[in-house]
Parts: sequence; structure tokens; C-alpha cells
Amino acid sequence: MSTAAAYAKPSSDGAFEKVTIERREVGPDDVLIDIKYAGICHSDIHTARDEWGGAQYPCVPGHEIAGIVAAVGSSVRKYQVGDRVGVGCLVNSCGRCVPCLAGEEQYCTNGATWTYNTRVPESAQPGGYTMGGYSTQIVVDESFVLSIPEGIGLDVAAPLLCAGITLFSPLKHWNAGPGKKVAIIGMGGLGHVGVKIAAALGAEVTVLSQSLRKRDDGLRMGAHHYYATSDKETFRQLRGQFDLIINTVSADLPIDNYLRLLALDGTLVILGLPEHPMSVTGRHLAGFRRSLAGSMIGGLAQTQEMLNFCASHGIGAEIELISADEIDSAYDRVVASDVQYRFVIDAATL
Amino acid sequence: MSTAAAYAKPSSDGAFEKVTIERREVGPDDVLIDIKYAGICHSDIHTARDEWGGAQYPCVPGHEIAGIVAAVGSSVRKYQVGDRVGVGCLVNSCGRCVPCLAGEEQYCTNGATWTYNTRVPESAQPGGYTMGGYSTQIVVDESFVLSIPEGIGLDVAAPLLCAGITLFSPLKHWNAGPGKKVAIIGMGGLGHVGVKIAAALGAEVTVLSQSLRKRDDGLRMGAHHYYATSDKETFRQLRGQFDLIINTVSADLPIDNYLRLLALDGTLVILGLPEHPMSVTGRHLAGFRRSLAGSMIGGLAQTQEMLNFCASHGIGAEIELISADEIDSAYDRVVASDVQYRFVIDAATL
Repeated sequence: MSTAAAYAKPSSDGAFEKVTIERREVGPDDVLIDIKYAGICHSDIHTARDEWGGAQYPCVPGHEIAGIVAAVGSSVRKYQVGDRVGVGCLVNSCGRCVPCLAGEEQYCTNGATWTYNTRVPESAQPGGYTMGGYSTQIVVDESFVLSIPEGIGLDVAAPLLCAGITLFSPLKHWNAGPGKKVAIIGMGGLGHVGVKIAAALGAEVTVLSQSLRKRDDGLRMGAHHYYATSDKETFRQLRGQFDLIINTVSADLPIDNYLRLLALDGTLVILGLPEHPMSVTGRHLAGFRRSLAGSMIGGLAQTQEMLNFCASHGIGAEIELISADEIDSAYDRVVASDVQYRFVIDAATL
Repeated sequence: MSTAAAYAKPSSDGAFEKVTIERREVGPDDVLIDIKYAGICHSDIHTARDEWGGAQYPCVPGHEIAGIVAAVGSSVRKYQVGDRVGVGCLVNSCGRCVPCLAGEEQYCTNGATWTYNTRVPESAQPGGYTMGGYSTQIVVDESFVLSIPEGIGLDVAAPLLCAGITLFSPLKHWNAGPGKKVAIIGMGGLGHVGVKIAAALGAEVTVLSQSLRKRDDGLRMGAHHYYATSDKETFRQLRGQFDLIINTVSADLPIDNYLRLLALDGTLVILGLPEHPMSVTGRHLAGFRRSLAGSMIGGLAQTQEMLNFCASHGIGAEIELISADEIDSAYDRVVASDVQYRFVIDAATL
């Protein structure tokens, strides 16, 4: 075992505080990573504040991890000391179920091991539940470690491990590319990465944001069109237009209004999980053979594909780098949608 | 112009009565059909009783039409007098929009012309709105006339023109076939045809019906499994099982319960239009990349493909043949789900 510095929430309403945690010994298949950067995802906040229930305390969130390999186990073949690597939302899965065998470990039917707040044996993480990336070191099985290619900074790569794959996976699954009209709802931590990836994939990209406040940013990132959803005219004007709409917003939206923007055989994919069930009118689906679908991050192989794609297209997240003692205020700003576009913790400040 | 006998509803709450209607002259592209059989679809009832609004009276429903060609226009090439033919839900569309050009005329963005209750010029249907198949004759553009192959009775073929294509189209679109697990919700006029077609396509077919009352019929028609949805154990036992679920029931169902029965990348397709919006919980979609979709009949080319498929597999609807003076009581029985499995009007009794 080794120790690492970490920032942990002691309770749902307590402030983050610096703690020392233990990491397991590096096993034959393990990689010890010196964490350099950790992104702040909205789901970190939901978990740390126990808004989804079941939080374990002290809680060390963080599943957008970028760092450098510090040690490897005797059987590790993919990585060596000094390699640039990342860890996303998953650190283990059963490896035997249909989704795992299909390379979709995030849908593991026996329950994937999430990077934080998942019950595991003490041998996997002292304390009995996983602790994430708001820390100086982490030990992860090499199968769940990603390579971060040269040409992309570790700081702007970190958010790709969750936000990047969360957008890349549905964009690929539903065939975003040349000739396809894609809309991204929301210009936040997820949405802005989606705009960059969808544009790089060759799709015609439209941003649907509450206001036109971030319009210049959106167009700079690759969007071809930008509309305000606060303007009712938007919904009239764009009716039946899109092959694919990706909803990155967790708030309760009037889903029917967005379904009507889909073309024949179009799909609206939700990524965020709204608090309340959605109200969906059947004829908006049947009338144009439309689909309402959901998607959750992506498998390990596709996450690597995404990192390679982003590196080759010069895509990183747009970030605000913070020190560890700013996590609480950063959380408040994320909730207030006051971040351009992702907070990343500099692990050197831990 | 010519005249035809028909059964019409004089008002939303009046009983059907025998009337004489006019049909347009047979134009160069037209086919005059001696109607032999007309199926009773639940949407006939909704329209004739003005439950969907906008009904025209006198109202002559009927879009499951089978008959014999009695005359053809000078330019007609596909049909000749004596041919066995059918007409479904559509008698015209714009022919120029994206869906029409894709052979999906039912989704015509300029508005398809439905077989009854659609406003048209007097030159297309004297009276100014279309009148359907509860009649002895109809005049239809040859592009919207289907060929009914030998080897399938006209009486059991009639319901295929709506019920058959309504099931065939989504089963084909979402790739029902060998190795796929397909569930059909509801064993009524639509569902029983869906069971036959899905089984003939090679899928493993499960019926999800309120009770086990029609179990023997379902198994005889090709279902491999049959479960009662009134039994809560059904929803526990079948969790995550199906690649495709087709919902033929118009009543408000707890959609979340059915979404949970889908496997990874599975799709739940609604065909009926529930009265109220559906309540859909996001995590049931995102957790397994599931889709909720809708579908509405099928295009003309696919309708012909369906008729050919059914004929080659010996598939017809299971019907109760009635005379025209029984339409009112048949409507009541359909609403009470008391029909095995489709009423068909014998046009010889008109």
C-alpha cells in the first residue's frame, strides 16, 4: 500500500478538506499513476452532495483523470513509467457479460466498478469503496487505463475522459458525419466538447442554447449555426431539420418540442438525467419514425479511439484551471452554469 | 363519375346507414376496383366517432381494402381488369418531398392523402373529402394500388393493408430476424399479425398480453413464449431480454416497465397513439443505450413487399367476416376487445 494526498468531502454538506488516503499495492496488472489534472464533472457534485443517494464519506470524486505512469506491475505490457495516461469513469467490469464482451463495459450487466463511490473489496481500495481523481495518485488495472497521445495537453485532455467520450460515443453510434445535421442542446462542459467533435466528424452542427451569450464561442469551436431556445421562433424555424440531436442538459426540458425538430428517422439522445420523468407524446415519435434514446459514456476501446481522434484534430476541452482549495467555489459556479467550460484541478496544488 | 353503395356514419353518434356515393371518373392513371372485403381498423372507429376531431360526415371509413380490378385508365401499366388488388391507408402523396422520394410516402411532409376523411378536390372525390372502403367500388391512382398475390384469400388479405404493414415495417426497419428476441405487446388485430410476421422472419417471438387467455392462439400463430402483463413477475423475469419490443396497444401503458425489458441497444416501438403523453425515465434509456421510437404503417413499395412475404409464408389475418349491417355492433366489440382477431366486412352485403 501507498499513501496519496486527496481532497475529500467529509459529509454531504461539509466543505472539501485535504486528507491522506491509501492506495492498494501495485499488482501484476496494475498501473500506478501520478495524477496531474482532474476535471470536475457535474456528476461529481451530485455524488459528493449525496443528491443521488448512496454516497460514501469521506468522498473523493474525480473521473476525468490525466497523469503520468509512475510504476507498473510485472504483467503490464501496454504502459511503462513516464507514459501519458488517463482514467475515466470506469476502473473495472466483469469482462464476461454481453456488453463487456461487446466492448461496452459501461453497460456491464454485473455492475461496472465506477472510479469513485463504488463498493469494492479492501484489497482493491482500502476503505472498501473507490476513491477518484481529486488525488495525487491512483492505482488502476492497465485494461482501464487510456493512453493520451502526444499533441494534446494533459490539462485539456482530462475532461475528455468523461465529457469527451460521453459525446463522442453517441455521435459515432448514430453516425454523425458528412451530410448529417446534428444539434447539440447546451453549451456547457459536455456541449462545447460535442460541438468540437461533431464538427471534426464532418457534420453540420447547430447549437441550441438558452441564449446567444456563448454564440461567438460556439462558432469558433466549429458550430455552423447557433439558436436561442428562449426564442419560440427557433422551434418553428427548425422543425423537422435534424438527423441527430444530443441533449447535454440535465434540467427538465420540454422534450416534445425538441422531438419535433427531428427529420425522418431522426434520433434525440439524452445524456443528462433529468430529475423528473420526461413527458413524451406518441405522435411526435410515430409521425416521422423518430427515436428518443439514451447513452452513457462509452467503452474502453472507443474511449481510446476518441482520444486518438481528438489528438489528431487538435481537440481539447476549454478549461479553467483551479487549485484544490477552490473546489467548493468551483462546484457552486458549475451549478450556476458559470464556467467556461470545464474546471480542472491542478493536482500539484493538492 | 359513377355511383357506389357504401355504409356511412351520418354523424359522430349516429348509426351506420346505407348510402349511395359518387366516385370520380377513371382517369388515365386510375384503377377502378370492385371492393370485395374491407377490414375494420380501430382508427376507423376513432375517426367515425370523431374521437380524434375533424371528422367529415357522412363518413365512409375503411383502409383495409381488397378487391378485383373492374376497369383501368389509358395509361395504367401495372394492372388489368380481373387482377386481385388492395388499397391501404394512402391514396396519394406529393411525390416530391424527402420521405416520398425515399419511398416513405406515409411520412409525406406535404401531407399524404389518407384513404378516408382527407380534404381533396371535388375532381378527386365528389364531396371534397376521401371516402374509404366500406363501399362497393373505389377509384385509386395505380401508384397507390397493391397487388395481392395468389395463394392468399382476399378476405384475410384485407387487414394486411393496414395491420400487416403497420407491423411488417418496424419489424424490418429494426431488423427482426434470426438471433433477435422480439416481443409483441397486445394480441389484438395488430398484434396477432405481428406475431405471425415476426415468427416468419425468424425472430424468437414473445407475446406480452394482459392475460393468458389467448395463449394457445399465440403459440399456434408462431409465438415461442407468452406472458401475462397482469403478473408482476413477468417484468422481473424478462428484464433486459429483448432486442425489439413492438407496442400495439393504444391504451396508456407504464412505458418505463417495458423499457426495462430491453437489452443493450434495444428499441421499444409504439404503434398505437396513447391518449396521454408517456412518462419516460431517462436512466432507463441511458443505462443500456435503449431507444423509444414510433412507426406509422409503411411506404407503398414496402407494403407490396409485405404482401408478397405474407403470401409466400401463408400469412393472413385471422378474421370474423360480417355483413354491412353488423358494423355498429362490430365497433362496440372492437372497443371491448371482443374480436378474434379482425372484423372484415363482406362487400357483397352492402
